[in-house]
Amino acid sequence: MMMPDSWFIEEFEGRVGALSFHVDEVLFEKKSMYQNVKVVKNSFFGNVMLLDDLVMLTDKDEFFYHDMLVHVPMACADSPENVLIVGGGDGGSVREMLKHPGVRRVVLCEIDGMVIEAAREFFPALSSYLDDGRVEVVVADGIEYVRAHKNEFDCICIDSTDPIGPAVGLFSTEFYGNIRDALTDRGAMSAQTESPAWSLEQFSSIVHNMRQSFGNAYPYLVPIPCYPSGLWSCTLCFKQDRNPAEDFDRKRTELVSEKCRYYNTDIHRACFTLPNFVKQAL
Amino acid sequence: MMMPDSWFIEEFEGRVGALSFHVDEVLFEKKSMYQNVKVVKNSFFGNVMLLDDLVMLTDKDEFFYHDMLVHVPMACADSPENVLIVGGGDGGSVREMLKHPGVRRVVLCEIDGMVIEAAREFFPALSSYLDDGRVEVVVADGIEYVRAHKNEFDCICIDSTDPIGPAVGLFSTEFYGNIRDALTDRGAMSAQTESPAWSLEQFSSIVHNMRQSFGNAYPYLVPIPCYPSGLWSCTLCFKQDRNPAEDFDRKRTELVSEKCRYYNTDIHRACFTLPNFVKQAL
Repeated sequence: MMMPDSWFIEEFEGRVGALSFHVDEVLFEKKSMYQNVKVVKNSFFGNVMLLDDLVMLTDKDEFFYHDMLVHVPMACADSPENVLIVGGGDGGSVREMLKHPGVRRVVLCEIDGMVIEAAREFFPALSSYLDDGRVEVVVADGIEYVRAHKNEFDCICIDSTDPIGPAVGLFSTEFYGNIRDALTDRGAMSAQTESPAWSLEQFSSIVHNMRQSFGNAYPYLVPIPCYPSGLWSCTLCFKQDRNPAEDFDRKRTELVSEKCRYYNTDIHRACFTLPNFVKQAL
Repeated sequence: MMMPDSWFIEEFEGRVGALSFHVDEVLFEKKSMYQNVKVVKNSFFGNVMLLDDLVMLTDKDEFFYHDMLVHVPMACADSPENVLIVGGGDGGSVREMLKHPGVRRVVLCEIDGMVIEAAREFFPALSSYLDDGRVEVVVADGIEYVRAHKNEFDCICIDSTDPIGPAVGLFSTEFYGNIRDALTDRGAMSAQTESPAWSLEQFSSIVHNMRQSFGNAYPYLVPIPCYPSGLWSCTLCFKQDRNPAEDFDRKRTELVSEKCRYYNTDIHRACFTLPNFVKQAL
């Protein structure tokens, strides 16, 4: 919602706002085949990407999300070399993947080329990593891509928008089943799974879908100031079940956390600790 | 800030909003000697208390804050019987204190009687605990009260507003020194210490002040959706230093966590884990 004097409020369930801020300048606005892609500027957040008027990322806060979506599964996967990001056209997850020296190939499968185009222009600190020699950018439907690849990726991160519009299929049991088949035997996948604080039912139904397909699902918490409620979740699944809070590569974690603003080894262990109201919903 | 069509935005550093929502109804609005006290209604949050247009609590989210401000120090204090809350006129912290069966006396020292008056009318689920026989409500300046009491309280929680207006003195080294003197030998104190995400310098300077007075200070993180950024902190100090993540009463923690929506034993251990950017600021 745009207020008369240029305040933007991300509406949440009609009568509540998530992030709100003064729009100092509109830098980019185009309608793609899938959604409205917009980049605006605010003096506190820096550049902000909006898809259909929902905040996707801000310069200030993006590290919370990208650190935790990527490094938690990467620390649990066995020597990951070949990895896939579904969505994430901004390049932030690719940047994090490339912090792991063992990674030889990162596929980014983004459905909307216009997100990549906007990020290349207005989020160079993220999108410049798309040019790394190890990265393969595929503009295609992640659902089709994943279905066509079997036993190929050591780690898959689902870096999607909310389960509305183009991303609905990325939260289905069928899709999670195909993700499982696309993973190598000791592989791990993560996905953003909404806010346990303000969307508890949606969160628990997504985790339920994952558990149906994988036989396991480990939700973990991430503060993301620019998303509704600021308390977000990701969920981790394995092709072969294990305990993610203990069974991870400490050496790799220590090395990578030197390059992180949020993630570290203690955070890796602690993030799986859930408050009572979240445990009860699962 | 009130928008023309009745949207409220809590302004943060001028060009950013913290919580924003549609004001369905204004239930209470009076100017006290200290501040503007207002209670408004929103269909998602329930009743919301605003002091000088800053969100203090909402029916929906208040448990995050009150659980963590109170139970973390209470689990670390030695058999706390005699406890003090500075501020917190809404009664939420009193309610949590009374969940500990060993507590015999809770003093609530709130400077602004009008906060208590508004809470009594519009937050009965919190304020009704002020009528418990173990509770002593004192309408007075916490700074004076604490200075006049020595070696008396096993646990003190500083349930204050932000360090502006009437609450500035509640963040000073001198005040923390008086808190230390008001504690019994194995006592613990906690205070809300602002957002490490959006007010990192303010957070670290408060923690610094505490460390100066106590010789120790253990910040811990709490998601509070209705406060700016959603990522909040409290900080724990001891008269006699110890390791709060390990040295706490597990039996009491297990018992009390059965009555909590956020707090539990694993959360107690995990909340002291800090992300890299917070560790670096301290």
